[in-house]
Amino acid sequence: MHATVLYAPRDVRYEDVAAPTILQPTDAVVSLPATCICGSDLWPYRGANAITGPTPMGHEYCGVVEEVGRDVKAIRPGQFVIGSFFASDNTCPHCRAGYQTSCQRRALVAGAQAPRLRVPLADGTLVATRDPPSDDLIPDLLALSDVMGTGWFAAEAANVTDGGTVVVVGDGAVGLLGVLSAKQMGAERIIAMSRHDSRQKLAREFGATDIVAERGDEGIQRIKELTRGVGADSVLECVGTPESMQQAIQATRPGGSIGYVGVPHGVMLDWADLFFRHVRLLGGPAPVRQYLPQLIELVFSGAINPGKVFDLVLPLDHVAEGYRAMDERRAIKTLLRP
Amino acid sequence: MHATVLYAPRDVRYEDVAAPTILQPTDAVVSLPATCICGSDLWPYRGANAITGPTPMGHEYCGVVEEVGRDVKAIRPGQFVIGSFFASDNTCPHCRAGYQTSCQRRALVAGAQAPRLRVPLADGTLVATRDPPSDDLIPDLLALSDVMGTGWFAAEAANVTDGGTVVVVGDGAVGLLGVLSAKQMGAERIIAMSRHDSRQKLAREFGATDIVAERGDEGIQRIKELTRGVGADSVLECVGTPESMQQAIQATRPGGSIGYVGVPHGVMLDWADLFFRHVRLLGGPAPVRQYLPQLIELVFSGAINPGKVFDLVLPLDHVAEGYRAMDERRAIKTLLRP
Repeated sequence: MHATVLYAPRDVRYEDVAAPTILQPTDAVVSLPATCICGSDLWPYRGANAITGPTPMGHEYCGVVEEVGRDVKAIRPGQFVIGSFFASDNTCPHCRAGYQTSCQRRALVAGAQAPRLRVPLADGTLVATRDPPSDDLIPDLLALSDVMGTGWFAAEAANVTDGGTVVVVGDGAVGLLGVLSAKQMGAERIIAMSRHDSRQKLAREFGATDIVAERGDEGIQRIKELTRGVGADSVLECVGTPESMQQAIQATRPGGSIGYVGVPHGVMLDWADLFFRHVRLLGGPAPVRQYLPQLIELVFSGAINPGKVFDLVLPLDHVAEGYRAMDERRAIKTLLRP
Repeated sequence: MHATVLYAPRDVRYEDVAAPTILQPTDAVVSLPATCICGSDLWPYRGANAITGPTPMGHEYCGVVEEVGRDVKAIRPGQFVIGSFFASDNTCPHCRAGYQTSCQRRALVAGAQAPRLRVPLADGTLVATRDPPSDDLIPDLLALSDVMGTGWFAAEAANVTDGGTVVVVGDGAVGLLGVLSAKQMGAERIIAMSRHDSRQKLAREFGATDIVAERGDEGIQRIKELTRGVGADSVLECVGTPESMQQAIQATRPGGSIGYVGVPHGVMLDWADLFFRHVRLLGGPAPVRQYLPQLIELVFSGAINPGKVFDLVLPLDHVAEGYRAMDERRAIKTLLRP
């Protein structure tokens, strides 16, 4: 089997690897009708994370179960399933509290930019759809595996409420789906910070009521104008840089909440600044598993179309071009078909 | 009139000053039957905050209104009132959201370690009791002005719930009243971190079910043992140092909440660490004004006795000894009588 392997910054290869098999009795092997590239894959691709050796890439997946280990009880071959980028047992105290990405047995899923994937802790990790989806739903369901669930968590962590005012920092797939999530949760005002035409357009389609193209102090100034000097009730931080976090902190009203899901890189927060601003913070790797049943329903009912974030479709063996397109911001998110 | 003035680290004087008068039409002047020293007064006393000139000390107060400015409508001379350490108009958007300490017109109250005090924005800041309190209630009501309201906010910010598990970091007056607040909010398990006999005793009296005397890694180890490896649902950070914040972060379960009220001194938070721990954070200067009506009721009904934190009573002109006793941790909190 061929799969995607990162060797060094910007050196991503589609090459022959061992086909995935059942290694643990709790594993499943899933056949993937489509896969994709995540904004967070760009961190190692750009050299922001150390690459210690050839690294199997891809952590977003949905597909048909081919084989399960002997201890797998709930998941069966033939089912169409979706799982999170972190495998979880869904029974430990952290899972039961809804934080499956902090599962006491969590394991990172890797190697999903491939035709087949081994998923650990299959019973806890995978959620089966009631019926096999039609092909046109595959991009929507694939998006649930990470970016849609992550945007949803950002909105929940930011305490988005019916009628509330929301700012979304970051116009990548997660930020755009944060807009969609806030809209679903009833936000009245959704201000998307974006400088790119195509992303602004999709943000509006997902429910943004205002676009702020300015950044830095000017961006904050615009947010303050739009909120009569008060700031936003809820801010979704979907980037992970010092600059984006500062945007988020300064856009939030006292007592307002920031949900942060951009993987932080090199950011220290000034505790005294947070203290005097009365900012509420929650973030981390989104507990996608918690939201999958609900989000699957929303996709099947047609209420949400998160697959719209895929604006580039390539054959899987062109994966390197998919990385380049996202790195150069020519594409929001690349879908790959085997 | 004499009042307390800080000149330099450890140089606190009780000396002649101009008596407070109405300066703004929204002011009130209040006569104070008792006043006190706050843990946060120790920051400048110990030289941790710069002292730019002779500084009138004291921000906790309750007493009888003597005089009001011409624009004061709700507050009348003769009323017994309590206010917060920040004056607030109680009408701006931040006040209406319950964050009066972020009031758009907020002003720090200063000079309360004196027989009389000018309070700005009297209508927004002061809450009158229905009846004049008996003398034995004065310490309880005085505690509401800051430490009790601050402990209460810490517990609210930490999302203390009925049946929850709570850790309190810090055994000063605020930490101890955080224990009392968590108890009032129905916490089942309240673990107080304290190494001092008298404070442990008061913590138990206020509702602590467990005491952890260890600090650092050992302290965390004990918390983990007491919570079956999970961590606490709610952690109250009532100190403000890098070490205490680390204790708080590591004591919290994934998805759990930290309410922080210790004024941060020199602390930077590692955002990536918070990210992967799924810790929820809210803190800041407690919006005491929000809680005053409720807490006054609890004092008058006898449900809470926050005045128990005063374990040293001195005449006001002995204020310097009061600072020394708290600095050397011989006293939890000093009450001063004119």
